[in-house]
Amino acid sequence: MASMVFSECSTSTTSRFFPMSLRKDAVVLLRRLSLPRHSCASKVPLSFRAFTVGASTPTSPPPSASVAIEACAKVIDGKYVAKQIRDEISSEVSRMKEAIRVVPGLAVILVGDRKDSATYVRNKKKACESVGINSLEVHLPEDSKEEDVLEFISGFNDDPSVHGILVQLPLPSHMNEQSILNAVTIEKDVDGFHPLNIGRLAMRGREPLFVPCTPKGCIELLHRYGIGIKGKRAVIIGRSNIVGMPAALLLQREDATISIVHSRTQNPEEITREADIIIAAVGQANMVRGTWIKPGAVIIDVGINPVEDSKSSRGYKLVGDVHYEEACKVASAITPVPGGVGPMTIAMLLSNTLTSAKRAHNFQ
Amino acid sequence: MASMVFSECSTSTTSRFFPMSLRKDAVVLLRRLSLPRHSCASKVPLSFRAFTVGASTPTSPPPSASVAIEACAKVIDGKYVAKQIRDEISSEVSRMKEAIRVVPGLAVILVGDRKDSATYVRNKKKACESVGINSLEVHLPEDSKEEDVLEFISGFNDDPSVHGILVQLPLPSHMNEQSILNAVTIEKDVDGFHPLNIGRLAMRGREPLFVPCTPKGCIELLHRYGIGIKGKRAVIIGRSNIVGMPAALLLQREDATISIVHSRTQNPEEITREADIIIAAVGQANMVRGTWIKPGAVIIDVGINPVEDSKSSRGYKLVGDVHYEEACKVASAITPVPGGVGPMTIAMLLSNTLTSAKRAHNFQ
Repeated sequence: MASMVFSECSTSTTSRFFPMSLRKDAVVLLRRLSLPRHSCASKVPLSFRAFTVGASTPTSPPPSASVAIEACAKVIDGKYVAKQIRDEISSEVSRMKEAIRVVPGLAVILVGDRKDSATYVRNKKKACESVGINSLEVHLPEDSKEEDVLEFISGFNDDPSVHGILVQLPLPSHMNEQSILNAVTIEKDVDGFHPLNIGRLAMRGREPLFVPCTPKGCIELLHRYGIGIKGKRAVIIGRSNIVGMPAALLLQREDATISIVHSRTQNPEEITREADIIIAAVGQANMVRGTWIKPGAVIIDVGINPVEDSKSSRGYKLVGDVHYEEACKVASAITPVPGGVGPMTIAMLLSNTLTSAKRAHNFQ
Repeated sequence: MASMVFSECSTSTTSRFFPMSLRKDAVVLLRRLSLPRHSCASKVPLSFRAFTVGASTPTSPPPSASVAIEACAKVIDGKYVAKQIRDEISSEVSRMKEAIRVVPGLAVILVGDRKDSATYVRNKKKACESVGINSLEVHLPEDSKEEDVLEFISGFNDDPSVHGILVQLPLPSHMNEQSILNAVTIEKDVDGFHPLNIGRLAMRGREPLFVPCTPKGCIELLHRYGIGIKGKRAVIIGRSNIVGMPAALLLQREDATISIVHSRTQNPEEITREADIIIAAVGQANMVRGTWIKPGAVIIDVGINPVEDSKSSRGYKLVGDVHYEEACKVASAITPVPGGVGPMTIAMLLSNTLTSAKRAHNFQ
């Protein structure tokens, strides 16, 4: 199932990890200014050189890769992989429908009028439609009672046509987030945030019913690019319940040696520099500089941070937790922001919903 | 509540972490052969020198500390701390009994005739008696059915006089350990092994009902000796469900920067040498050598490994995962084996049982 979809700037010494599969639909110019610290650009001529980095539509290439940079790292194209996964899910949904007349269903509960939340919910709905998963949406007013939300959750828990339940966060401040999330039955907890799922994820010999979507997407990217995890040093920057902590548990399940860097870590730069694999999920624009990175490391950047950009019509651009241009000179592979981990999250939500429906109907 | 009970060999530069509180009931000779790598022995004369390391009865001093060694590290006296904790529990049990006429109760289920298991159960029973906790024991024959065990668990789950349920492992091979352990209600899971407890331990903002006893004992030793955890580099060697993994989660909750070393780690020595705090829980005699240890590190040794010893009447002696004599020259503090973590495990089991009874009766 795994395929290699690296975009790359050279046939580098590190490319033994990363079989080349150039895509012909986008072109970016590479300016060779100086030899990077490792010899990965040894075959790059001292001139502009064309290489592929992403999709060709004006809106799609990762902005940070769409300008001339003295890059070296291969770009891990999350947008492309997510599309590939959605295609696979789409086929599976069709196969299931044909075989047992069951269509997976995802219920999303949105409370209040936050524009960002409404956008996220709309995107999830569109993603469901694109792969043939049924989506149900409940939109409750800001001043709803906690009981109203719990009642809908209870209804979805009992509804056999619903295989995943997602409560869009944040909830209004008068509601107890924890008790609402705990009300979702573990069999439909497609977010994977239930402590029982996290506990099973942490324990050897136990299997969680669902793995949280964003960290699952990070690991899936590593898998699909054939990046070995077993025995590797992995540093996870950030220890949130939704990304850092479960990402660390997942990497450890795959036999990486993990270290977790967080706000109380005294020498984050030094520790990060030991990593073969870096997962940055801390929400601080460009925090991880080039000097933090061991030559040849693989970087999965989960951060999506808006920073001022007078050149953009929106007045801002999105950047990751890792300083992309600096990292490109040192790392062997990196996810762009946007277009890296972002698209994987929704793909994994669809994947979890499909898994749930298959499990509920014992469909292989 | 915390008190300082270090035994020590000198007033060292590192002793700023460890206020001295010499105990007069045991004496060990220190032979000053050469200056250790850090200057902690700078005030030790170039001759034999007396210092205290443990209790005075012939059976109680840690064997590895009972001979003349060129030691420097202070000894973390688990036996002493565990006694202190049991005394505290004893007072609390009396206070509870007086105030609300409730006595905490621990039920232990033993299946089969393993001698080691029978010894463990007997020790737990004795420990309960020593602090005034009621203990109930069920001993089932080796060829019992799984349903028999589940029936007893169900009875204890419903019994208000039982506040903790412990199934002695290993179970006979025809039984499904996981389904039996899962049958214990989370409110009485004093072992803390239920995935829901582990999940809560892993998640920020969540609180487990119980923390597994051995790792809880490790952290308690650090606390009682005033050893700071926040911001420290901690390396946990071993990733078992019962010690390594929960110990890592606990240290992270206290803001340590954790790394987990395991059988697939390629350079365990190098990583361990970065640690300010080492928790070794891997079950390999003397695996961690002096060269693995950063000068001044604190070592908690969970391993209890029998090794051949012709001098012993039993033909063997018990040693830890850490080479004690070598470690003593480099570390600032270390738990002996036996007499370090071992006595803490049962003390924490009693503590969890008391906590459970207090919670059940809303007794502060």
